[in-house]
Amino acid sequence: MEKLVLLPGPVMVHEDVLLRSAKQVMNHRSEEFEEILTECVELSKYLFQTDGNVAIITGSGTAAMEAAIYSLLEPGEEVVAVVNGKFGERFADIAERRGAEVRRVEFEWGKVADPERVEEALADSDAEVVTLVHNETSTTVLNPAEEIARICREYDALFVVDAISSLGGVEFRMDDWGVDVCVTGSQKVLGCPPGLALVAVNDRALEVMEEKDAGSYYLDIPKYLEYLEKDPKQTPYTPAVNAFYALHEALKRLKEEGLEARWERYRLMQRIVREGIRALGLELFVEDDEIASPTVTGVTYPEGVDDREFRGEILRDRYDVVVAGGQDHLAGEIFRIGHMGEVRIRDMITAVTCIGLGMRELGVDVDVGAAAEAMADVLSEVS
Amino acid sequence: MEKLVLLPGPVMVHEDVLLRSAKQVMNHRSEEFEEILTECVELSKYLFQTDGNVAIITGSGTAAMEAAIYSLLEPGEEVVAVVNGKFGERFADIAERRGAEVRRVEFEWGKVADPERVEEALADSDAEVVTLVHNETSTTVLNPAEEIARICREYDALFVVDAISSLGGVEFRMDDWGVDVCVTGSQKVLGCPPGLALVAVNDRALEVMEEKDAGSYYLDIPKYLEYLEKDPKQTPYTPAVNAFYALHEALKRLKEEGLEARWERYRLMQRIVREGIRALGLELFVEDDEIASPTVTGVTYPEGVDDREFRGEILRDRYDVVVAGGQDHLAGEIFRIGHMGEVRIRDMITAVTCIGLGMRELGVDVDVGAAAEAMADVLSEVS
Repeated sequence: MEKLVLLPGPVMVHEDVLLRSAKQVMNHRSEEFEEILTECVELSKYLFQTDGNVAIITGSGTAAMEAAIYSLLEPGEEVVAVVNGKFGERFADIAERRGAEVRRVEFEWGKVADPERVEEALADSDAEVVTLVHNETSTTVLNPAEEIARICREYDALFVVDAISSLGGVEFRMDDWGVDVCVTGSQKVLGCPPGLALVAVNDRALEVMEEKDAGSYYLDIPKYLEYLEKDPKQTPYTPAVNAFYALHEALKRLKEEGLEARWERYRLMQRIVREGIRALGLELFVEDDEIASPTVTGVTYPEGVDDREFRGEILRDRYDVVVAGGQDHLAGEIFRIGHMGEVRIRDMITAVTCIGLGMRELGVDVDVGAAAEAMADVLSEVS
Repeated sequence: MEKLVLLPGPVMVHEDVLLRSAKQVMNHRSEEFEEILTECVELSKYLFQTDGNVAIITGSGTAAMEAAIYSLLEPGEEVVAVVNGKFGERFADIAERRGAEVRRVEFEWGKVADPERVEEALADSDAEVVTLVHNETSTTVLNPAEEIARICREYDALFVVDAISSLGGVEFRMDDWGVDVCVTGSQKVLGCPPGLALVAVNDRALEVMEEKDAGSYYLDIPKYLEYLEKDPKQTPYTPAVNAFYALHEALKRLKEEGLEARWERYRLMQRIVREGIRALGLELFVEDDEIASPTVTGVTYPEGVDDREFRGEILRDRYDVVVAGGQDHLAGEIFRIGHMGEVRIRDMITAVTCIGLGMRELGVDVDVGAAAEAMADVLSEVS
């Protein structure tokens, strides 16, 4: 029996998607591949809720972040980077690597970004670009992208959002909100194998990119868009063809389920986990439901519980459930339960129950029965 | 029946490799993945014939080229770029994008690089880096990497080789020859799906990289090597886990066949194709067997044959054989038959015969019988 992998990406992949990826490789500069590529781009626009442009890059989410930054910023240019976790920090680091002048607007890890502070930074600088991580996977916090987008519009700054671990899993409306560039990855909500990154760019941002000296050859977004105009439509460099097969299938599954329905499903997953964890008597890393991530939930370790032992010998080896640890200074302090991809009610119940039983084995006083009742209550509200 | 895809990458993937890639995703920062990653790195050293370091990057071959250049060169630094085709040009373009001072040593497309000209360029410049494409896929020419390596050693220049479409398919001895950095891709000789790129770096080059300001965040080679020292060993950014499964399987297949045996197999494939094409009465783009690519063969179109019609309606749609066209100014002038990956005798015979029959349909005077005889002669020598 395979393990129940509940990481905040990569996630378990549905059999239909996995098998699709095992189809024989085809010519990546053919009408046959054009059809897959084109449909992936069109379905991605639905995912991003945009009528703009979408580039699909072979690489990780970080590659897409770099593509956005290196296509938009030249050395010496200013950027406001909102930082309240590892990935917000990464955006800032990438911009520094590019030689940009980075103004960090920092918040404690686990706290939500305050739009007012972003406004202050914009009022006080010449920055024409703002970066934000929508769902800070490292801290399990959802940042207020819509409000910050509004501020960016007021200050005429381009708003670049990393929605790698949120897009498709919670309301996000690129065009309506006025997000200019948005990046995501295949291995999160979409439930694909890792290896593809998607970058959506509206015309306003594309115009700016086209005026800039791109900082990267491989991660040059306008070039990807230019190749989508060729006959046949293609990617500039050999794409991970099989990963495209998988993406195609996964995007069709998303369309079939419907974005709103998936958002709703994830809200339910989130509630089951949060109420279950609370009823166990464990502490949520982000107590406030209003800012809690819809796709990943952090749990603070009770005193004396060793991360490696709990997640390794107990949870993974004995209960066959895989969750993630904390990152950077949160390593050993929290663990994180991913609820993205194809996750369903049973997975959440399994996770919470096994976490409870595992904690009990380690001598933690948890109430497994109360957790079951709490989860049943959540479910009774929706059935 | 699936098509016989004989592109110079991506190539057809063996069923065992494809199915391996459809295994469920696992935690990429686990002991379980560490084992796969570590074995891939070790087997890659055999492939490169090096005791040095190997980074495996999620991306195309171009990503690996950029990783090499952006990790080695800072803006303003000089580089000698040997250019006799599209990919040699790409190395130069990437270096220019990095802001390096690029000195191109250019040769006509279809001609081999002359080591003396490289020596002249080094004698006449302060360049500390030289780039070469070993097997120029665009022109089907194999460049003399060993000789140029010797010159680089004399001038104490770091030698960076793109062996994307040759490595594993023809003799290449990174350490013995003194190649400092070598890049390759998963979708060529290795016969994997596209999506992973490998970069081998010896200690001399790594020391230089560690002193430089890396130009890219995602494509920062020392960072990949640093993460191979972590516990568990891992990649800095989420890798294409399923592509690693495939790579692992493909590298084991290579090891099992043996490098020398694969080189020998490809020499045979090359001879069958070349003698077959000649006997048909068609013209090889590279007439000289000494400099002809071991993994891809270019054929000059007879006057009046339309590339799209021949490769599309005739060869692909009617005969189910897929070959590549020419690139850039060679588009419409040549077509290219890939013989890398898992190709076997039957594939070559099929390709040559179908090409002959297809040409005949278009009114070209070809001798299909003579081609069969010529291929039989080649085979009789080795059986």
